[in-house]
Amino acid sequence: MAAHQIGIIGLGKIAQDQHLPVIKANPNFELLAVSSQRGLSHEDAKHTFQDYHDLLKLPEVEAVAICTPPQVRYVIAREALLAGKSVLLEKPPAATLSELEDLRHLADKMGKTVFTTWHSQYNKAVDEAKKALAGWSIKRLQVTWKEDVRHWHPGQQWIWEAGGFGVFDPGINALSIVTRIMPEPVFIKNASLEFPANRDAPIAANLTFSASHGTGDLQAVFDWRQTGPQSWDIEVETEAGLTLKLSHGGSCLEIGGRLVVQEKPAEYEGIYRRFDALLTIGRSEIDDAPFRLVADAFMIGKRVQVDAFEE
Amino acid sequence: MAAHQIGIIGLGKIAQDQHLPVIKANPNFELLAVSSQRGLSHEDAKHTFQDYHDLLKLPEVEAVAICTPPQVRYVIAREALLAGKSVLLEKPPAATLSELEDLRHLADKMGKTVFTTWHSQYNKAVDEAKKALAGWSIKRLQVTWKEDVRHWHPGQQWIWEAGGFGVFDPGINALSIVTRIMPEPVFIKNASLEFPANRDAPIAANLTFSASHGTGDLQAVFDWRQTGPQSWDIEVETEAGLTLKLSHGGSCLEIGGRLVVQEKPAEYEGIYRRFDALLTIGRSEIDDAPFRLVADAFMIGKRVQVDAFEE
Repeated sequence: MAAHQIGIIGLGKIAQDQHLPVIKANPNFELLAVSSQRGLSHEDAKHTFQDYHDLLKLPEVEAVAICTPPQVRYVIAREALLAGKSVLLEKPPAATLSELEDLRHLADKMGKTVFTTWHSQYNKAVDEAKKALAGWSIKRLQVTWKEDVRHWHPGQQWIWEAGGFGVFDPGINALSIVTRIMPEPVFIKNASLEFPANRDAPIAANLTFSASHGTGDLQAVFDWRQTGPQSWDIEVETEAGLTLKLSHGGSCLEIGGRLVVQEKPAEYEGIYRRFDALLTIGRSEIDDAPFRLVADAFMIGKRVQVDAFEE
Repeated sequence: MAAHQIGIIGLGKIAQDQHLPVIKANPNFELLAVSSQRGLSHEDAKHTFQDYHDLLKLPEVEAVAICTPPQVRYVIAREALLAGKSVLLEKPPAATLSELEDLRHLADKMGKTVFTTWHSQYNKAVDEAKKALAGWSIKRLQVTWKEDVRHWHPGQQWIWEAGGFGVFDPGINALSIVTRIMPEPVFIKNASLEFPANRDAPIAANLTFSASHGTGDLQAVFDWRQTGPQSWDIEVETEAGLTLKLSHGGSCLEIGGRLVVQEKPAEYEGIYRRFDALLTIGRSEIDDAPFRLVADAFMIGKRVQVDAFEE
């Protein structure tokens, strides 16, 4: 089978760091075109456009990866589907749940693949954690996602605007692991969202979950004010006494205190293997569970004002 | 076919005002049991329980109408489905979208009917508005939902708590009409939510929508501080020049300035006719579109603090 001819829309940091090198290393994809509003080009692409509409006009393009900021993803994805292209969406897949739902209908209607990617799910440690927890009742879940926003998001004003998600931008990665590994769905029961006095997005959040079964103690804390060591950890304890710890953003797994997986992250390699498979069989994979938890947290969360944040 | 044997869980105002008389008047339903945590009973019901678990144990009960506050609906609905009962849910159908999604899966798994009711949709004027707008591009949408919270929700503290929805409690009725009548889906583009300094839920909201097609001016304003005349109006203008106004919460319709429908609301009569049909054919109807718009508005909305609210 010939390689999938792909285009990348939006040449920001994630496209440069991940999508471009991973596509180049995967023989089942061929980078046909890129589009960049800022007029960036890339040596590997045969075609470079400033306007993504021109990229969508190329009949050879089978699929596009949309790597723009989330606010414009829906409009681009919709036009891509209507142009007969399949679509890979960076996380979060759209600005709102209603936009994503419309893409689901449109993918069905056009018979094209839509693939919502949640990169943190593509770790061997996450797969192994899911297997280890399958079928058990959960007694305790503690998600600790604490990082220094000044280090990881310097100068990114849009993340602080309404709709920019704030600390849920990294937090949704944790939630995407939670929805993957938990043997039963979890729901937001209570949330407190800490908004700096001068910002329209939360800098920290405390979430309490409930599950259908049992009375487990299920918690998450997200904080963007962490200096020193950074934490991207998920600890789980089952009713039967199994303990499990995912650390380093989902790339290391300890079970019962013993290190069982420690691998260099290769998340985007896994994403493109999955996209290859979905394109080949002509199926979509639209997972809105992490995004729904974020919307639920904003909807039922209590807002608390905290100190102004200056970069 | 024998009448559907039904139970009502939660005997608050909406059960007393609507569900009980409407069930009594519909020969296709027979009220078998009620449950009320406060120990209320009802003369029409053969059985009265304080604990809804006892109601769910009655093998003759085919379906239950859940009329409790939204926070506990999911847990009750889940237990009802697992007990083999079909479920009618008052609006909003759950506390969070993730809870509703789980009920969708469970309804499928159990082969039972789940019916999310949006009472404002059950008006002839709404049906006629939908027909009139089908196939047209929308130039302007103006939703004006302004009422006096002191008059309509006296002493209801839970609506002011986080997760109590605030002005979206009536506002979701407007959104349920919008999602019903608009010929294309709409999305929240911007929102500003006004929170009283001493409350955890908004007292007013301004929403701007976008649609897949066109560049229409689509707006909604919800306000709970309205004294004097109350407004529950939806005005629509199509690109082709058709103007339409739904007023009085969806019970009156003017097209081109001419009154075409003016009927005494009979919303719950319509809801129970629909439930009868769904039970008879064994299908679910789970419409999360209005609820999704509310979650989207909270997720991307800008919070603005306004004067404290005292009853």
